[in-house]
Amino acid sequence: MTDSGDLDAAWLPSAAFRAVGSRRSLVRAGDGPPAETVYAELADACERFGGRVVRDGGDGDAELVLEPAGDDLGDDLGDEGFALTRRGGTTTVTASGERGLLYGLFHVVRLGEDAFRGERAREVHRPALATRMLDHWDNVAVHPVMGQVERGYAGGSLFWADGRARGDLDRVRAYGRLLAACGINAVAVNNVNVHETEARLLTDRIGEVAAIADVLRPYGIRTHLSVTFAAPMVLGGLPTADPLDGAVRDWWAEATGRVYEAIGDFGGYVVKADSEGQPGPFAYGRSHADGANVLAAALEPYGGTVHWRAFVYDHRQDWRDRTTDRARAAYDHFTPLDGEFAPNAVLQVKHGPMDFQVREPVSPLIGAMPRTRLAVEVQATQEYTGQQRHVCWLGPMWSEVLRFRPDGGVSAGRLADGLVAVSNVGDDPFWTGHPLAQANLYTFGRLAWDPAADPHAVLDEWIALTHPGAPARLADGLHAVLDGSWSTYEKYTAPLGVGFMVQPGHHYGPSVDGYEYSPWGTYHFADRDGVGVDRSAATGTGYAAQYADPWAKVYESPETCPDELLLFFHHVPYGHVLHSGKTVIQHIYDTHFEGVAEVEEARRVWAGLADLVDPARHARVAERYEEQLRSAREWRDQINSYFLRKSGVPDERGRTIH
Amino acid sequence: MTDSGDLDAAWLPSAAFRAVGSRRSLVRAGDGPPAETVYAELADACERFGGRVVRDGGDGDAELVLEPAGDDLGDDLGDEGFALTRRGGTTTVTASGERGLLYGLFHVVRLGEDAFRGERAREVHRPALATRMLDHWDNVAVHPVMGQVERGYAGGSLFWADGRARGDLDRVRAYGRLLAACGINAVAVNNVNVHETEARLLTDRIGEVAAIADVLRPYGIRTHLSVTFAAPMVLGGLPTADPLDGAVRDWWAEATGRVYEAIGDFGGYVVKADSEGQPGPFAYGRSHADGANVLAAALEPYGGTVHWRAFVYDHRQDWRDRTTDRARAAYDHFTPLDGEFAPNAVLQVKHGPMDFQVREPVSPLIGAMPRTRLAVEVQATQEYTGQQRHVCWLGPMWSEVLRFRPDGGVSAGRLADGLVAVSNVGDDPFWTGHPLAQANLYTFGRLAWDPAADPHAVLDEWIALTHPGAPARLADGLHAVLDGSWSTYEKYTAPLGVGFMVQPGHHYGPSVDGYEYSPWGTYHFADRDGVGVDRSAATGTGYAAQYADPWAKVYESPETCPDELLLFFHHVPYGHVLHSGKTVIQHIYDTHFEGVAEVEEARRVWAGLADLVDPARHARVAERYEEQLRSAREWRDQINSYFLRKSGVPDERGRTIH
Repeated sequence: MTDSGDLDAAWLPSAAFRAVGSRRSLVRAGDGPPAETVYAELADACERFGGRVVRDGGDGDAELVLEPAGDDLGDDLGDEGFALTRRGGTTTVTASGERGLLYGLFHVVRLGEDAFRGERAREVHRPALATRMLDHWDNVAVHPVMGQVERGYAGGSLFWADGRARGDLDRVRAYGRLLAACGINAVAVNNVNVHETEARLLTDRIGEVAAIADVLRPYGIRTHLSVTFAAPMVLGGLPTADPLDGAVRDWWAEATGRVYEAIGDFGGYVVKADSEGQPGPFAYGRSHADGANVLAAALEPYGGTVHWRAFVYDHRQDWRDRTTDRARAAYDHFTPLDGEFAPNAVLQVKHGPMDFQVREPVSPLIGAMPRTRLAVEVQATQEYTGQQRHVCWLGPMWSEVLRFRPDGGVSAGRLADGLVAVSNVGDDPFWTGHPLAQANLYTFGRLAWDPAADPHAVLDEWIALTHPGAPARLADGLHAVLDGSWSTYEKYTAPLGVGFMVQPGHHYGPSVDGYEYSPWGTYHFADRDGVGVDRSAATGTGYAAQYADPWAKVYESPETCPDELLLFFHHVPYGHVLHSGKTVIQHIYDTHFEGVAEVEEARRVWAGLADLVDPARHARVAERYEEQLRSAREWRDQINSYFLRKSGVPDERGRTIH
Repeated sequence: MTDSGDLDAAWLPSAAFRAVGSRRSLVRAGDGPPAETVYAELADACERFGGRVVRDGGDGDAELVLEPAGDDLGDDLGDEGFALTRRGGTTTVTASGERGLLYGLFHVVRLGEDAFRGERAREVHRPALATRMLDHWDNVAVHPVMGQVERGYAGGSLFWADGRARGDLDRVRAYGRLLAACGINAVAVNNVNVHETEARLLTDRIGEVAAIADVLRPYGIRTHLSVTFAAPMVLGGLPTADPLDGAVRDWWAEATGRVYEAIGDFGGYVVKADSEGQPGPFAYGRSHADGANVLAAALEPYGGTVHWRAFVYDHRQDWRDRTTDRARAAYDHFTPLDGEFAPNAVLQVKHGPMDFQVREPVSPLIGAMPRTRLAVEVQATQEYTGQQRHVCWLGPMWSEVLRFRPDGGVSAGRLADGLVAVSNVGDDPFWTGHPLAQANLYTFGRLAWDPAADPHAVLDEWIALTHPGAPARLADGLHAVLDGSWSTYEKYTAPLGVGFMVQPGHHYGPSVDGYEYSPWGTYHFADRDGVGVDRSAATGTGYAAQYADPWAKVYESPETCPDELLLFFHHVPYGHVLHSGKTVIQHIYDTHFEGVAEVEEARRVWAGLADLVDPARHARVAERYEEQLRSAREWRDQINSYFLRKSGVPDERGRTIH
């Protein structure tokens, strides 16, 4: 992949390999796919930058050595970790597994010339989370409403076109390489809403999945498949999909066996069951543990995993019913099942209790199921955060989630076993539609590897890799337009954690009451006196009590609830004074004016970088800033007008509200 | 067509022909298609009911004679009128034109046995309006968003399927017969939004239109075609569609000549120009008279007419802009052009200034262009009135429009030269989806023939024809559920003429703010203090002043404005007291509770008719009442909640508002 092709090089431009490509390297490893990749990457870099790479044999003067750890030294490295040392002019990467060597190589690439300076004591790098996964909501057959990629904003699917797997998978190969370079090790290749065509990937069309898996394997990536819970009926012709039915169990076992014949290192299944119309175990009076376990049992002999989504709620709610609270649903459904899931079943939980809003509390389910393997799901595709027409770098949001301590920090236990993102990538030349949205994908991978990492440092790492040798003005400019972009987006959209207020269906642009009288359970209850959802235990839905202390206490009272979540947890008068000292209504006005001003400023900063950025890339971003600004103004004016009309409270500063 | 076939017989069941079919009849007429139809109808009826019909020759004992009027006697009949007399046991229909005989026959059918009793002095029946037309918004190729029939709620198109004219046109023939029986004489066979495929009906696909015209001609119906103003470019390859360009004029003349080669009695063109994205003369700095006249000139040699729609407005309005008023647009655009349109150009004006809402004032354009031929357009398809899932018989609304006197009754001039309805018919077995929606189609035809007719009498006529020999309980029940259904629908939807408050896009079901911040110019401006649009001349948009007196004065003040239009013309506080003595807010609550109660009552009445109605028909209506009731409750609760939240005024009667 070159810088000048049709395809954007993203964070692996040719120049990023200058440091390793101009050195003498030695690769000692097996001949599995990841090790082959390590050698091939070095060989390619050396060809471009004049270095040299040899395999196995002697060559005593290597500046870079990548080799397996001896049995005794590799104990702390795990399957994917690596150790880095530098001594006597030689930089050495050791790893227990071949994938560790690959991650080690990309680590050296990230370090650049720094990897070859001075001495370096042994540093161990290991991923904190075993599963670092991207879920693609890609349809094989274009869906009449949802299109090729559900909630996709970057063109068509990388994997599927014209109703089949793409014949040319070069693009997928390049994708796998980008993912490996930021630490991602799993990809689910089709939409969790499994339609008729896609269901068949599990059986007679598994060959298409195998072709994709073959291309991703060299980059250490295991391929996963979304399947329908009704597969035994839809594909197997059985009269039931009851997970406790023997024939159903047998069907899954047999179907899974055939999958592994085609894909020996197949990762496993992803299942959205009893959710938004998808079939599930409730139809048979079975629990979701029963449902997950029948798939887990089928996968177990082969080392596969089922990712079972916890996104189960009543999507046919009556808006008149104030007793039902969608936010409670995942916790209420799943915590009683703790301990019942098989060891190779992973409960995949959205980071917040609702649905990927710009601001939500961390789901109370996280931390509440100590005897269940958990993966946290975030959304790289910007469904509710500007749809890759707005700049909205989500690193800080994800970092907040990952640093959240359900018990307030009493225990040091990890939050989850895996991190999953809904992919933001398509066949767009810039991968992500908005070129700056690449930063979200990169940041996701790096945070999945190290949830404790400083997201701002990851952002700078992405800037440096993507723009090798960037002058300070460019690096500073990129940092400036990205760093605060999540906060900016939050300012001009739904205030204080209340969420939604988007156009129904496509979810782009404002509609304050768009979901207010809908069956989706997403309400703000604004009236002439106040706004917000009372989720306290004392007077509301009781959701706040789903948290352990200290959070249950913190969220229970408007006095202690953080401002940014106030309207998620409480219905308050417009005159309620925030910790910031402002009233709620003045906060709404102020943040909406500020948010637009910040977009105007970012657009100005971007315009000033025109001389430092490739013209096509600059133009794409500039064009999107025009749309972002138009849209942000629309958000500002609709939200402000709505609340002025409802509250009657004028803006203290007398600005124009229509 | 029999009662028992797949197809509902609507208002022409076999039994409706018993009276004429059991008599001796004589037809004296030419051998043109309508005269042939008269003879064939009688022959068919006689075969079923034992009567006899002869052509031309002697037979002195005929009980029914249909014959051409002598030159001197026919002067008052016009082309389509007829005279009816009964003397000495013979009922005689005379007409100047063959279509008059056909309408006379159907008139005798309507009279039934009454046509053959006693003596009857000469009665002359003539249509008040020369053009009585149905516009079908049917697409040839299924549109990705709008489907086969735009705003169609009765299945597919009667004319088009699989991208072509249907091969079997029996259904179209039966349709023509139904239309003739209620007096309709013109049909436009394709959508006014002319897409790529449909554009070509004008040229290389005119044969398909001719096949349809052949089937409609025997029922006195002329076929019209919607064309795109850009046809000279799209189809002719010209660089312009400028109406003053000579090559454009020549292209239209030549294309139109070829149309008449295919269809000798072709009715003419229907054009939606410069409207909601359709091309038009504005692109060339020309007026709409220029645009219409180039088509009129092409049609003139053949006696054709162009129907030029006045639905021109800014559909990209900024909701923040309070100076633009969509209601003003048609008047502002067209009145300056009065006198400039060719004699065979007809300006087709929607009955209200907005878009077929359940309540609008009559368009001020009607009556304001004395030197222009005008057709009034109504919407039989229930886009905004329940989409044929709700019973909403529109006779009273249309009658109000047709009886409106723009000058308050000073002059006795007629309102328009034609009446056009957007058809509510598709390939549904009941024609109109909801079987009771047939009443709208029938009523439209009868009111187009006689705008002064009492719509309630027309309703009873439809009930009697459609259910021959119906016991009083059935007739009364049908009358009960239909008669007030428009008022009922108005009660539970947008109040006091304010309009819209529907779900954007498909326009079904409530969304109070759905169009409030949209570019469509359809706002209600509700805030915590009041609601409505100030369209007065004194303080508002000035729309009220587009009317002549007395209406300009009546509408200008909230004191004189009729209650049912108050919020269309004025923004008033919730406490404003209506002429009814109620406050606006209490009126909103009361009507919404009443509307739902009325639907419940109608459903109850319908359920009680089960023993008197064909089971399939009864079940279809019963099922739709369930949906109507669900939807009406949703309207009630959303509207009431919205206004309670905004106004803070409780319901006087303490009913549940959520």
